[in-house]
Amino acid sequence: MNNRYIEKIENRLSELFDIDKSSQLLNAMEYSVTAGGKRFRPALCLMANSLLSGDNTECLDIACAIELIHTYSLIHDDLPAMDNDSLRRGKPTSHVIFGEAGAILAGDALLTMAFEIMLSNAKKYPQNLDNHVSAIEYIANASGKNGMVLGQWDDLCNVDNAYIKEETLRWIYSNKTGALITASLLSGLQLCCPNEEQINAVKAFGDDLGLIFQLTDDILDVVGKQENIGKTPGKDAIQNKTTFVSIYGMEKTKEYINQLADHAVSCIKIFDNTQDLASSVYFLQGRV
Amino acid sequence: MNNRYIEKIENRLSELFDIDKSSQLLNAMEYSVTAGGKRFRPALCLMANSLLSGDNTECLDIACAIELIHTYSLIHDDLPAMDNDSLRRGKPTSHVIFGEAGAILAGDALLTMAFEIMLSNAKKYPQNLDNHVSAIEYIANASGKNGMVLGQWDDLCNVDNAYIKEETLRWIYSNKTGALITASLLSGLQLCCPNEEQINAVKAFGDDLGLIFQLTDDILDVVGKQENIGKTPGKDAIQNKTTFVSIYGMEKTKEYINQLADHAVSCIKIFDNTQDLASSVYFLQGRV
Repeated sequence: MNNRYIEKIENRLSELFDIDKSSQLLNAMEYSVTAGGKRFRPALCLMANSLLSGDNTECLDIACAIELIHTYSLIHDDLPAMDNDSLRRGKPTSHVIFGEAGAILAGDALLTMAFEIMLSNAKKYPQNLDNHVSAIEYIANASGKNGMVLGQWDDLCNVDNAYIKEETLRWIYSNKTGALITASLLSGLQLCCPNEEQINAVKAFGDDLGLIFQLTDDILDVVGKQENIGKTPGKDAIQNKTTFVSIYGMEKTKEYINQLADHAVSCIKIFDNTQDLASSVYFLQGRV
Repeated sequence: MNNRYIEKIENRLSELFDIDKSSQLLNAMEYSVTAGGKRFRPALCLMANSLLSGDNTECLDIACAIELIHTYSLIHDDLPAMDNDSLRRGKPTSHVIFGEAGAILAGDALLTMAFEIMLSNAKKYPQNLDNHVSAIEYIANASGKNGMVLGQWDDLCNVDNAYIKEETLRWIYSNKTGALITASLLSGLQLCCPNEEQINAVKAFGDDLGLIFQLTDDILDVVGKQENIGKTPGKDAIQNKTTFVSIYGMEKTKEYINQLADHAVSCIKIFDNTQDLASSVYFLQGRV
């Protein structure tokens, strides 16, 4: 992925937390935001904004807000009542450091802060306010009861179900992972007042990309499990979840990823400068 | 309180949840929203909007969004990791019915839905879009790291501390309860393009009202405890928290409420039609 985007995002996230931290709440929020995320979603937001030569400065707080929402979702997903993970990216999860109540509140505050910074940013661009409101709306709609939270809910409902239909799996993936990825792209594009054809193209690209993201995750899960054979079995090693790999096998899943990647890149051929977005596809392919 | 406002709010909340509930997530969200809230905060939003003869229809989704945020905060506060309450308003709390994970996600989805409906509503009023964005921003800023979530964080930090300084208590109250009450008023007013004097008057009124709300809660807590003497002691009966009643005693606290009430009503005398807002003060006074 293009480091130019990542650098902008890291710098702005640092600025956003360069505030009075007399309350430990702010430390809890910052702890998870700076715990080593790839910044994949906010980078997509800036890349889609650049597709129509948008001013990334105008878009940057939307990108960072998406990362705050992604981070809050990880904090809550890791809780004992949910996935009960004590490590993420090699570091103790939020509730291990700040307690369960602390992790719940840090997540709540990050979700709220996402809207705080997007609204504050929107007011700086009165002549483009309607597009800012639409961009924020994309993100809100993708994050809640029709998107990410719904996906997590349905995932938890199926956690003891070893045989999920492919249709159900696609539904969960599209909500839990796909919705916010697509919204990241559409929100960045929206600031440039796109036409319907451009919106549809980026939406189709995003839907492919979200599925590729989840399929590569499925493969990495299996590889991780195989590497762990012979070691003390952790939660992941003894869990038998339905994934695309369990349905189609490793090779067919990789073939499917390559098909989706070709399709994704073809979706955005109506734009001139698609190099950055294509690189995000190759980045995911390169994970497996 | 004026029933005209409450009826509008109840009807709109019903409409908002009159949607496909194929996912149990939606049922979990609706369960807590319809569990018998007084709709105090959304009513304040409509009342402040009426102060400058605003169109309550334009304001209604903002009012309902505030109730969704209030509801999410109660769901999360009731969790075992926080206040561990199994009953609220005589009904089992969300996690008792839907499990801890379900309650966390229902809360997350309600907070997100609040922004979904405010943003969708804002787009219906393109000529007043800047005021809608400012109104939503008031609510966001009052709900998170500088308001409600911070108040709950600080309250939990002091839960085992029987001797809190009055200054700290005021700080916690102003964030946990006061911020969203004041924002409810300011957001409703904002749609009418208020001048600075009007904003300051309503803000001062809101700050008084928030404190009155918390002081009457403190008194009701003590009365509840006294009624429970001789019965099986619950969590509240054995907890000795610092409150205004424990610092000043019952009579002085009531006197202080009356002083604040007089001051609150005097703050808004620059407006012509203050009957509804004054009634909200009397409503709180009438609780004790």
